[in-house]
Amino acid sequence: METVAIIGVGLIGASFGLALRKAGFEGEILGVSSPRSIEAGLKAGAISRGVSLAGAAESADLIYLSQPIEGILDTLKELGPLVRPDCLVTDAGSTKALIVSTAEEHIRAGNFLGGHPMAGKERRGAEAADCNLFRGRPYVLTPLHVLTPVGESSTRVAEFRSWLERIGAHVLEMDPQEHDQTVALSSHLPQLLSTALAATLAKQNSEHISKVFGPGLLDMTRLALSAPEVWMGVLATNKAAVREALGAFQMSLSELQLRLEQDSLLEFFNAAGRFSAKIRNAPYSV
Amino acid sequence: METVAIIGVGLIGASFGLALRKAGFEGEILGVSSPRSIEAGLKAGAISRGVSLAGAAESADLIYLSQPIEGILDTLKELGPLVRPDCLVTDAGSTKALIVSTAEEHIRAGNFLGGHPMAGKERRGAEAADCNLFRGRPYVLTPLHVLTPVGESSTRVAEFRSWLERIGAHVLEMDPQEHDQTVALSSHLPQLLSTALAATLAKQNSEHISKVFGPGLLDMTRLALSAPEVWMGVLATNKAAVREALGAFQMSLSELQLRLEQDSLLEFFNAAGRFSAKIRNAPYSV
Repeated sequence: METVAIIGVGLIGASFGLALRKAGFEGEILGVSSPRSIEAGLKAGAISRGVSLAGAAESADLIYLSQPIEGILDTLKELGPLVRPDCLVTDAGSTKALIVSTAEEHIRAGNFLGGHPMAGKERRGAEAADCNLFRGRPYVLTPLHVLTPVGESSTRVAEFRSWLERIGAHVLEMDPQEHDQTVALSSHLPQLLSTALAATLAKQNSEHISKVFGPGLLDMTRLALSAPEVWMGVLATNKAAVREALGAFQMSLSELQLRLEQDSLLEFFNAAGRFSAKIRNAPYSV
Repeated sequence: METVAIIGVGLIGASFGLALRKAGFEGEILGVSSPRSIEAGLKAGAISRGVSLAGAAESADLIYLSQPIEGILDTLKELGPLVRPDCLVTDAGSTKALIVSTAEEHIRAGNFLGGHPMAGKERRGAEAADCNLFRGRPYVLTPLHVLTPVGESSTRVAEFRSWLERIGAHVLEMDPQEHDQTVALSSHLPQLLSTALAATLAKQNSEHISKVFGPGLLDMTRLALSAPEVWMGVLATNKAAVREALGAFQMSLSELQLRLEQDSLLEFFNAAGRFSAKIRNAPYSV
């Protein structure tokens, strides 16, 4: 793997470039992005130069799609006829089912591997890139296409996995649908609750709320700072699972409201505390 | 102010003791608590020695009630006949209306001042005490009784406020009811959402959730680790305001669910993001 092309040089893409460099990758890292993002990516040292998508497809051994989901879908269609037989196309989109099925339609079998790094920040763009963003975090691969790898692309998959390990990610494999259902609960639901909490407080006619709060409110509203454009694509491409996750939360909230009236919330709190402790002891916890 | 007594040597009480010491307080700091907490408080350097409540009332110039709310209510009743005329009793309870009215009933007017430090941690006990816990954080006083300070207690109030400033707290004054309505939204609602989120995920029959998540889930479930015993008292003494806060959240959640179906969540996300940014620029933000 000598040449990597990062399509969408934002927080994730630029962090991937920086992480590769830190892990010892010495090849060229091409960037395909807006002029502003190319400039920021060059300044951060995440890419070597900016090129067109066709230029990237011509020489890249690995094409890393790190745009918002709609951008990934568009690029997959455009890339279809351009991908070299020995090139691996992968993506970092937060939902997988639609991306994987779109790739199936447009990219040669064996040349695509879906991925999702479970990492992020509320800050955006290459300016916020971090060579350690993936370190200690799960990196889900959805290897639908690579169950029967074709020709040289199977080598590329092994190479790509090995780089993911070198940048410190914990690689997991999941089915795309299973992935989407899991993240609807573990990622999309927390995001929506943070946003709904901040939206609720924003609507209150109180001069005090923004002065009288503890560190807990900052935790609970951090995700609400996430880029809305990115989330519109995530939610639009995982609506059924998100609807179900919100339904499950709604049931818990109703139980909580009932138990509040009955002064019987202790076991509810204890079960929640046990879960929170459990995910902190998980091997992938920060 | 030469002698301070801390009733309830847990996280808040022991942190107050450590903060006083760090700010230069050289008097005695008495502790009234369980043997285990007294031992931990002595080890942390937060108190000088353990005494009985009657012993504390005999010599303390400031009595600082930092127990769970039920403990504070019980202690106020017990303290009534014991408080010296030049002693100030204050508390660190998370709700104020019931505590202040109980104090009105049992403590001489002018000898009580309600308080609420907007600080905390998910870890408990004197072992987790931190001399900087109050630094940069709001400290609400509900000076119902001290509008007409009597005798020497007005000096004590001024002294206490001055120590709060020396330990780095931002002192604010609020009416007890106004305080309780504000924290129902800014503190109790975030706690309940964190707990309900963790309870929702705990109920899912998924081996993946506890492996596949990003740092956002850790933020959103940190409050769920808070001591349930403490929260039972908070919720029981602020039920009406908490009910209203949950109702306001429920309205936002319904709006979110509707907008999810309509793909029209952008402005909802933007409003939430603006609020989150605003509280981060607030003078009291960490």
